[in-house]
Amino acid sequence: MSLTPSLDAEKALPRLLNFIRERTAAAGKLRLVVGLSGGIDSATSAYLAVRAMGKESLVAFLLPYRTTSPQSMEDALAVAEELGIRHHTIDITPMVDAYFQFFPEADAKRRGNFMARMRMAVLYDQSAALDALVLGTGNRTESLLGYTTLWGDMACAFTPLGGLYKTQVRQLAAYLGVPSRIIEKAPTADLWEGQTDEGEMGLSYEDADRLLFSLYDLGRRDEELVKEGFHPSLIKKVRGMVESSSFKRRMPPYCEL
Amino acid sequence: MSLTPSLDAEKALPRLLNFIRERTAAAGKLRLVVGLSGGIDSATSAYLAVRAMGKESLVAFLLPYRTTSPQSMEDALAVAEELGIRHHTIDITPMVDAYFQFFPEADAKRRGNFMARMRMAVLYDQSAALDALVLGTGNRTESLLGYTTLWGDMACAFTPLGGLYKTQVRQLAAYLGVPSRIIEKAPTADLWEGQTDEGEMGLSYEDADRLLFSLYDLGRRDEELVKEGFHPSLIKKVRGMVESSSFKRRMPPYCEL
Repeated sequence: MSLTPSLDAEKALPRLLNFIRERTAAAGKLRLVVGLSGGIDSATSAYLAVRAMGKESLVAFLLPYRTTSPQSMEDALAVAEELGIRHHTIDITPMVDAYFQFFPEADAKRRGNFMARMRMAVLYDQSAALDALVLGTGNRTESLLGYTTLWGDMACAFTPLGGLYKTQVRQLAAYLGVPSRIIEKAPTADLWEGQTDEGEMGLSYEDADRLLFSLYDLGRRDEELVKEGFHPSLIKKVRGMVESSSFKRRMPPYCEL
Repeated sequence: MSLTPSLDAEKALPRLLNFIRERTAAAGKLRLVVGLSGGIDSATSAYLAVRAMGKESLVAFLLPYRTTSPQSMEDALAVAEELGIRHHTIDITPMVDAYFQFFPEADAKRRGNFMARMRMAVLYDQSAALDALVLGTGNRTESLLGYTTLWGDMACAFTPLGGLYKTQVRQLAAYLGVPSRIIEKAPTADLWEGQTDEGEMGLSYEDADRLLFSLYDLGRRDEELVKEGFHPSLIKKVRGMVESSSFKRRMPPYCEL
């Protein structure tokens, strides 16, 4: 069996579309809102939602901060225009700066997490205004690795791509016709110029997905993976990321009495 | 068996303190941050945290909006001073107004939810700055009834009081020496002058707790509860609140493929 997660997009698509329709109907809603970052995950989620619900049912929000690259905005806009969906831009700079003016020493990580939470708050408020649900855009790779902001980008009504590894999202994106430059560009949280997910994690998505799939889906043991060519330190690093981020994948615990 | 949830505070206390110590240690942290609203839940949580960890280990934040009542701030301050803990005030008005200036039509509910999410974002940022965890202050009554802001006040590292009904929190608060005016005042989310939780829910905490405890802990059937004097419409209302808020008590679902 291959250690690489694969995707039969033709077979997966109807299940993904049903999931979106069922979850939306179960909440008694007719509409979804999504934040478009210009990246592949939000683009693919938007393509899916339009296939599932029709283009009238999805409203997109572009939520730039002043350091967001013009290219990201251009790519986000291309998705909205390609899909023919309503879209609005809400600059989160005033809200974010209103806070950090008092904490100028805050580093990029604190700022990035705060921005992700501001975007969540804006999307939830807009979903209330539109009587809609917030469509999640997270994937399985970033969830397992903990490469998310708790109560930020992971916060949503449901996330169709949450069971798909990043490399599977790429396959699905291509199948759905997401613009190729969005599929091919280096994923980034857009926190500073030149930032990439892979650079920050110190790990390529190809390696991450093969390892995560082998460890958590196939249940392979470390020795087998070393034989497959994975460096023990890489296996240890990935296991460590999954374990130390487990708090991001469950609701806050309380004291049982 | 009584239909009213009771609490043996003397017996519960060591378990609550251990829970706080264990969860904090498991995360590799030495400190907690808490948002003090002036209400009983955050006050009781702070009293517990100081008992568990010592007063040097808890940092309190008062996070008023311009409509927050002076009495709430006074009560929050009284808790911090009584406990002798470090405390800071961060006014969330500039952040909140920076957003709603563009949406002046937003109603009190939208504004209240947005504020709860801003407070979460501020507490999480401050916890990052202090290498601390965010102490949750939610109780079982509000969680079951869904009287919380999703990804707002419910968002935390752990919530010691999460297994206690509101009326049990009152017993615990008295046992811990929380100032009596905080225990006795009408609980409020402080969204507008004269707002009370009970007025907004259309339900007293006494009734809510007896019903929730009977339905979800004792597993009583509706007919029995009608015999106990509960009006069928009240039972239906409470069941409806619990069911329609179930999405607030679990992580966002994803599509399994």
